[in-house]
Amino acid sequence: MQIFNSWENIRRKKPLIHHITNYVTVNDVANVTLACGASPIMADDLGEVAEITALAQGLCLNIGTLNQRTIPAMLKAAQKADELNHPIVLDPVGAGATVLRTKTAHDILQAVPITCVRGNISEIKALVKGSGNTQGVDAAPADRISTENLTTACTFAKQAAAMLKTTIAITGAIDLVADQNICYVIRNGRPEMSRVTGTGCQCSAITAACIAANPDEPLAAAATAVMAMGLAGELAYENLRPKEGNATYRNRIIDTLCRLTADDLKKGAKYEIR
Amino acid sequence: MQIFNSWENIRRKKPLIHHITNYVTVNDVANVTLACGASPIMADDLGEVAEITALAQGLCLNIGTLNQRTIPAMLKAAQKADELNHPIVLDPVGAGATVLRTKTAHDILQAVPITCVRGNISEIKALVKGSGNTQGVDAAPADRISTENLTTACTFAKQAAAMLKTTIAITGAIDLVADQNICYVIRNGRPEMSRVTGTGCQCSAITAACIAANPDEPLAAAATAVMAMGLAGELAYENLRPKEGNATYRNRIIDTLCRLTADDLKKGAKYEIR
Amino acid sequence: MQIFNSWENIRRKKPLIHHITNYVTVNDVANVTLACGASPIMADDLGEVAEITALAQGLCLNIGTLNQRTIPAMLKAAQKADELNHPIVLDPVGAGATVLRTKTAHDILQAVPITCVRGNISEIKALVKGSGNTQGVDAAPADRISTENLTTACTFAKQAAAMLKTTIAITGAIDLVADQNICYVIRNGRPEMSRVTGTGCQCSAITAACIAANPDEPLAAAATAVMAMGLAGELAYENLRPKEGNATYRNRIIDTLCRLTADDLKKGAKYEIR
Repeated sequence: MQIFNSWENIRRKKPLIHHITNYVTVNDVANVTLACGASPIMADDLGEVAEITALAQGLCLNIGTLNQRTIPAMLKAAQKADELNHPIVLDPVGAGATVLRTKTAHDILQAVPITCVRGNISEIKALVKGSGNTQGVDAAPADRISTENLTTACTFAKQAAAMLKTTIAITGAIDLVADQNICYVIRNGRPEMSRVTGTGCQCSAITAACIAANPDEPLAAAATAVMAMGLAGELAYENLRPKEGNATYRNRIIDTLCRLTADDLKKGAKYEIR
Repeated sequence: MQIFNSWENIRRKKPLIHHITNYVTVNDVANVTLACGASPIMADDLGEVAEITALAQGLCLNIGTLNQRTIPAMLKAAQKADELNHPIVLDPVGAGATVLRTKTAHDILQAVPITCVRGNISEIKALVKGSGNTQGVDAAPADRISTENLTTACTFAKQAAAMLKTTIAITGAIDLVADQNICYVIRNGRPEMSRVTGTGCQCSAITAACIAANPDEPLAAAATAVMAMGLAGELAYENLRPKEGNATYRNRIIDTLCRLTADDLKKGAKYEIR
Repeated sequence: MQIFNSWENIRRKKPLIHHITNYVTVNDVANVTLACGASPIMADDLGEVAEITALAQGLCLNIGTLNQRTIPAMLKAAQKADELNHPIVLDPVGAGATVLRTKTAHDILQAVPITCVRGNISEIKALVKGSGNTQGVDAAPADRISTENLTTACTFAKQAAAMLKTTIAITGAIDLVADQNICYVIRNGRPEMSRVTGTGCQCSAITAACIAANPDEPLAAAATAVMAMGLAGELAYENLRPKEGNATYRNRIIDTLCRLTADDLKKGAKYEIR
């Protein structure tokens, strides 16, 4: 279970992560980056993104509230990160929901090699197939991964990784983290996490932190981050008191990540490799 | 007390709400939308707002940190929502405080029929009279609704609804929700809510969710949402522990909305119809 | 210990503070402004900033996620504030990290007299020396103020105040608040505050509120605000329960500020004057 050491490496190396992200969940993204032991910097002006990317050890692009001003900034930051061989995580929020989002995600994927793409199944399908059933920022019910369609879903995840030349992290009721050969099937998490805005964005953020601290093992690092997020959702849920709801749950998830150790992960992670 | 069923309809129908909103309170707006059972999507680029509006079942426009880029996006989204007969809620944050805010709110009101306008008394006066005493984002003391001026205030609310061709929700120490014929006078809420940023924005968000789930009854739906917000403020306040202040109060209000039922509303709502 | 009265003045005068700030920590900045007794308004469009500044009693400029659209708005707001003799606080987030940030901070400092600059030691060095070791948004280890280099650091703080013609607040493990003659050395705070995003931005916000409520004593007001922030960090830390982490710590710091009195400050402030 050596992969969990990658979690401790975040705290040991404290990578600086450059985020170009949406303004809805950006504060949680910053706090979750600090919680897992990394350091966040947010900057999205074309006139400074290359410098910020160069200062950082990893780049996390999230298209959640993309606009005409930030799209070129994302592309410029991606080019600089690629030049410096820094890992890049792409969160294609809402790909498949609008032409602009699908196109922007594609443009980023075509501009430079992306280390990891983390999204829900509908978003990943939209990237692979050019169309999707994305409903707002949630996966379409018809797309959802379950015990019934798991074999097909694992094959799809590996194919998507091959096609997009990246590590793929598909999160939902069951999470799949795959490269073209190996697929981690992860059963951590709680359905109540979907009532907290930004748990997907937060997962992408800790994935970027974990890969930046373990740049030679993006698949294991991404799988660890996805397990950590799901396990934090479980442990935080157990700590909820009567009358607490989604706002406090949000705080407890981040609190839990702040205290989560490699040992906790060893004990709590539920996964198999296919 | 049938109006409270409109609250349960949000959870039953889970409407997707498109928000073009300010970046100060956007995270709370997203979490409160999830808390009441709806689903939020934030998008403000001119190149995608029409598609997002079309995917959603309701539109919530909040001019809190409006800018030259987002104003045309708000107008375009409003036009698409009107075309599709989707309800539109407008929160004219700071109308009366600057020419740009008053003008933008007017432009939106003149472009398409707005289902509901939710603001404080100074903002609504600014929209109706073309001038106001708005002080920053708070109502001016001279404008405030009290037991003494209630009859006049109810008449004003009905006139404003008639003039702006909308349902009006005026929130403050006493809340008024009116169309041109009927005015709900609501006495839920706590003065401490004004020390939490964005309780007004949150009220607009759940109003949009409640109207989207009850499109044929905008007045009852808006009244229900305003009562729910006020009641959540009361119940959350009772749950505050020693040493807790406005940050925790914020979380407990959203937590309370997350668990609030139609039964809670029946028990706790304090209103009369005039 | 009369300086602590300046803290109560915020609650007595309830100044309205105009913030042009970053979208990462803006919600916390708004809630902390309310917590200390002031009222926040956020507005960054060139078309309305002068009006908003004129309505307010103080201006807080934070360059955390500056962009080409907001830089001219900051300059325009600064000019209006100067015209009206309103206090201006500048938080030069990331100065020294990029050319754009260093240049923008300089442009603001050269455009009008700034009442107080609050930053970490690397940011202030970047402003004074034209270069810095800023690492992302944190101070460089080599720059940090400690017992060993304290005399030199105090001299530097006074020189920086003289050179930039402002009150300087340098926050870190030891905080220095200085004009050209006097330097407050403040030993409040907790190292864990650096794992909460935006405690620096929050400190700038309450500094702006405290100076706006005490415009004739910017040095004492800034020192009081810096002590209040540090003390809130200490008291909030004592209230943390097992399993709570940086997200709850964030809330408890704001909660503590919401209840902090001049008496608490008298008891808890740890400072000397050099």
